[in-house]
Amino acid sequence: MVELSDQFVFNTFAFLVWGALVMWMCAGFTMLESGAVRTKNASMICLKNIGIYSIAGLAYFIVGYNLMYTGVGDLWGSFEFLYGPSGDEKSLLDASGDAVAGATATLLDNLNASESPFYAKMSDWFFQMVFVATAASIVSGAIAERIKLWSFFAFTLVLTAFIYPIVGSWTWGGGWLAQEGFQDFAGSTIVHGTGGWAALAGVLVVGPRLGKFKKDGSVRSTPPSNVLVVTLGVFILWLGWFGFNGGSQLALGTPGDAIAMTIVLVNTNLAAAAGVLAALAVSRSILGRIDLFAGLNGAIAGLVAITAGPTMVDHWWAMVIGAIGGLLCTLGIKVLEMVKVDDVVGAIPAHLIAGIWGTLAVTIAAGGRFHIQLLGIVSIGAFVFIASLLVWKVLDVLMGLRVSADVERMGQDVGELGLEAYPEFVLMPEPNDLD
Amino acid sequence: MVELSDQFVFNTFAFLVWGALVMWMCAGFTMLESGAVRTKNASMICLKNIGIYSIAGLAYFIVGYNLMYTGVGDLWGSFEFLYGPSGDEKSLLDASGDAVAGATATLLDNLNASESPFYAKMSDWFFQMVFVATAASIVSGAIAERIKLWSFFAFTLVLTAFIYPIVGSWTWGGGWLAQEGFQDFAGSTIVHGTGGWAALAGVLVVGPRLGKFKKDGSVRSTPPSNVLVVTLGVFILWLGWFGFNGGSQLALGTPGDAIAMTIVLVNTNLAAAAGVLAALAVSRSILGRIDLFAGLNGAIAGLVAITAGPTMVDHWWAMVIGAIGGLLCTLGIKVLEMVKVDDVVGAIPAHLIAGIWGTLAVTIAAGGRFHIQLLGIVSIGAFVFIASLLVWKVLDVLMGLRVSADVERMGQDVGELGLEAYPEFVLMPEPNDLD
Amino acid sequence: MVELSDQFVFNTFAFLVWGALVMWMCAGFTMLESGAVRTKNASMICLKNIGIYSIAGLAYFIVGYNLMYTGVGDLWGSFEFLYGPSGDEKSLLDASGDAVAGATATLLDNLNASESPFYAKMSDWFFQMVFVATAASIVSGAIAERIKLWSFFAFTLVLTAFIYPIVGSWTWGGGWLAQEGFQDFAGSTIVHGTGGWAALAGVLVVGPRLGKFKKDGSVRSTPPSNVLVVTLGVFILWLGWFGFNGGSQLALGTPGDAIAMTIVLVNTNLAAAAGVLAALAVSRSILGRIDLFAGLNGAIAGLVAITAGPTMVDHWWAMVIGAIGGLLCTLGIKVLEMVKVDDVVGAIPAHLIAGIWGTLAVTIAAGGRFHIQLLGIVSIGAFVFIASLLVWKVLDVLMGLRVSADVERMGQDVGELGLEAYPEFVLMPEPNDLD
Repeated sequence: MVELSDQFVFNTFAFLVWGALVMWMCAGFTMLESGAVRTKNASMICLKNIGIYSIAGLAYFIVGYNLMYTGVGDLWGSFEFLYGPSGDEKSLLDASGDAVAGATATLLDNLNASESPFYAKMSDWFFQMVFVATAASIVSGAIAERIKLWSFFAFTLVLTAFIYPIVGSWTWGGGWLAQEGFQDFAGSTIVHGTGGWAALAGVLVVGPRLGKFKKDGSVRSTPPSNVLVVTLGVFILWLGWFGFNGGSQLALGTPGDAIAMTIVLVNTNLAAAAGVLAALAVSRSILGRIDLFAGLNGAIAGLVAITAGPTMVDHWWAMVIGAIGGLLCTLGIKVLEMVKVDDVVGAIPAHLIAGIWGTLAVTIAAGGRFHIQLLGIVSIGAFVFIASLLVWKVLDVLMGLRVSADVERMGQDVGELGLEAYPEFVLMPEPNDLD
Repeated sequence: MVELSDQFVFNTFAFLVWGALVMWMCAGFTMLESGAVRTKNASMICLKNIGIYSIAGLAYFIVGYNLMYTGVGDLWGSFEFLYGPSGDEKSLLDASGDAVAGATATLLDNLNASESPFYAKMSDWFFQMVFVATAASIVSGAIAERIKLWSFFAFTLVLTAFIYPIVGSWTWGGGWLAQEGFQDFAGSTIVHGTGGWAALAGVLVVGPRLGKFKKDGSVRSTPPSNVLVVTLGVFILWLGWFGFNGGSQLALGTPGDAIAMTIVLVNTNLAAAAGVLAALAVSRSILGRIDLFAGLNGAIAGLVAITAGPTMVDHWWAMVIGAIGGLLCTLGIKVLEMVKVDDVVGAIPAHLIAGIWGTLAVTIAAGGRFHIQLLGIVSIGAFVFIASLLVWKVLDVLMGLRVSADVERMGQDVGELGLEAYPEFVLMPEPNDLD
Repeated sequence: MVELSDQFVFNTFAFLVWGALVMWMCAGFTMLESGAVRTKNASMICLKNIGIYSIAGLAYFIVGYNLMYTGVGDLWGSFEFLYGPSGDEKSLLDASGDAVAGATATLLDNLNASESPFYAKMSDWFFQMVFVATAASIVSGAIAERIKLWSFFAFTLVLTAFIYPIVGSWTWGGGWLAQEGFQDFAGSTIVHGTGGWAALAGVLVVGPRLGKFKKDGSVRSTPPSNVLVVTLGVFILWLGWFGFNGGSQLALGTPGDAIAMTIVLVNTNLAAAAGVLAALAVSRSILGRIDLFAGLNGAIAGLVAITAGPTMVDHWWAMVIGAIGGLLCTLGIKVLEMVKVDDVVGAIPAHLIAGIWGTLAVTIAAGGRFHIQLLGIVSIGAFVFIASLLVWKVLDVLMGLRVSADVERMGQDVGELGLEAYPEFVLMPEPNDLD
């Protein structure tokens, strides 16, 4: 067997390397969203996303992590502030010369005796922190082009400090859903569902963009402003997902872990590929044409769908799960338009709908209790949706959620931020019937 | 010595980490190509590239991998479907508690007894799969701006399911070229040559873009539509190449492997840097000006050239090999224009010409049999070129290869896909003498 | 304890993986700078940055590394050429079959006996080489839009072959500053200060861009040409910094190293996040509006500031250090404008000012001798600034530093390179009162 000291290093390094890739997903969301909005709002998306990652990183340090993982009771954990490496780790860092070997042995012995996993304490924080940012990034794309900057930042703070950590504590913190046996390996529901429900609450409160749904009942097409950047964003997310799912094995230190992590990456890739091809295949019949945007969202949907169980399902199932995810996402884009819900980047179909499917699919493909999966989906959905709705409503009263119609027409880049995304490029005039 | 269990983890993790970087090369090709074509075809390149990676991933799972690696006979391996982790690996994954140690020991003992390498079975698949996508990506750049989407996807399917795996089986699958002693560490010829020959066959069948070669004998300049994105693509490829060549050591688990992998990365970087500077230095005399595009292609050419033997040559040779690669690539761009072969992004000079040079250079720099290298280059070239030519011709009859002149003039983004790359930006009118 | 052979592999692999991420920072600088300049100079920035990385890679191989690390005396090390793996490493690479175990043991025993660290010799070169490129990249952003290509390349050569290695030898090479006890973990001063001082000397010699400072005393705003690309650049740099600081632990092979590396990544991220939020918070009062560019530079400044001591300070201090870095950077942007120093991308505030703060902050937060930190800052600053000033002046005489006013007005892309960044896009006419 692998020595405990080696396991410690392997596990820690895996958290750091895969965590770095998950951080990279924030760049992916930024590119996807800023390329998908109209040019007049692209700078604002950049600002929102660099802000999300910064707020999430501090909020999860100050409040979120312990709320999610420390002393979790009926509904959440501890409100204490996070504070760095463990005592044994500090002793080791302070040791020098011959004392290092002894301090290392003490650390490992104590971890072993308390049946704790073998990794540096804060490496887990690092990995979990980048997950929080992901959940918040999902929201910004859906409600883009009309939400005020500071209201959005305030929501992000609540989401990353409280809502997401409470939901996370139920399963990953060892809370009541874990005890029921809810299975969600890397968060089809816990991360992507949470982001999706919060986004849905937001778009319902803030309403569709001016002119998106015309008075004659038709839907105005708002093509992405920069398709290359959207595509780049999707490739970044796909790459980052290897860290997102691979790192969620939470260990690399034994051959068994290495095999499991391998299966995770293979299934993740197969599901994404199948999601792309399924979405492209059905886009002609559903959306009326071969559609790049559907294909790109199909990749995201395939990735979200496999996230609940990439170690549990076999490879053929991974393809099926991803393909159905891509199909449902494409359908979802159409349905949202039909019910006049304005989700700018398709975040709700790609993350929420595909996430629900993926969470259920685990038990279809690999066995387990379907009704417990449903319980998890419904209880997390109800909590996140209601809590988010409340927060959005409160923010609407306190700060106002929506920019003025004038700002919306001229774009948030000029109207709110004073910095166009491409100041020197000549743009087409917009249609002047936006309301 | 490193314990077998640790070797297993090291080797597996190296495949996963470096494989993730190679996947990232697909984003690099996408950016390079979509920035290098004219704006009217940039969305189509995005769609083609996300499609390539998806098709390659499934085709190599369903057919390619076993064709390349399992039971390779005279010309190829097995047509069976790939099916997941080994029996010993599954037993280990199913084990729990005290049974884990035993299952791990059994796995390692059996690998040891059969002289198999120590890594999770599917981690090798993951790493090899991203290579296939690379080969296919090379093709899309060369024949951009006039090839029909579905014909291109059909070719991609054949290339990644059959042509590339058959070629790969000859050397990496232990087939006849391996027995002859052909040396191609990470695929100067096997990957980049294959992509280059397939591309050459394609551009010959489909012909140059309308107006590229004017009636007066001059060549129309078609500058890249977005230079920043091309440059980003090259940086992505350079980064990804550390995975491409580094991972091709196929092991990390011993100090000897770690040293070899280090030499690979150092040589890879030296060759690329030398390729850039050599191409910039000669671009003025060959192309008439200091040329960014030549420099960027010089990086690719240097990388391709060192790929055949980055462990075998010493550091000074790596610089020489890269520099000559950059020089030949720049010359190749000029020569292709002279013979009126229209390769949009310079894929043939950068991948095929530099790949031939690199494959020969191994024996010049490090010894070995020059004529065997030639044999490998010629046999792989002949097979890939002829097979590709046949496939392109058949597809031309069945589906048509080339878009209509109308679609080509208006661009594939509007004519075939219905989605411009930058819908809100005002573009220059094109010259109206394109034919 | 971890076996020596395992330590060797861990340490080497950490250098390679983190080094690859640091190389990626070159793409980040390229995007940041090419998006921040006016459109007419964006291609030139791409060329300069691919050139920087290539020149730095060869110069540091041929001269720099041994000057910095081998036989360092009073002011520098050896001028010998670098030459590859050690003798023991070569013996191991040449060994086969049963001889491998013996050669491995000899290598490890000899490292152990000489108290050398356990990693492949050239993996350290690889990691240090990517650092050099970073220092040079800082310069190109500050003096963009008016410096001649070849003069800039000549300066880059001197900086990466001589100036940076000499400075590095003082501390990291074990020279006189190390003996004084100067603390600069990953180079707030050694890398970022060096880049910043060289940039400051450059902008002073070459002068501000035409029209930047108007005759009426006001400052012409030159907004970034492509905000998405600037933002992407910052995300790339943030990701790359995990490698920059994490790899600077120089070892991963023991639990103590893994813990230290973890603390480094956590502190790096906290400082960057705090830098963003602090810069955004103060941008309204300092710059008159919420400012994306200030927030993005705040991330860089937070990262630079924590770089001097990310293992030494605790997490709360990391946030404070990052926040003050972001604040100082925003102030610095304003101050530079007031004293009419034209730094196109804010490189001097983000790298030099934040670097000075970070270097001092180590002793404030974690103890140590403040005056030694000051000594390091002043001596490195004086040497780099004076040496750079001399080199810039000599180059000005020999080659001319500044492009002609005509080229500057039409842009270097057309005037010097003959390749516009976005050839097909229609751009706004520039104001015609640029001088």
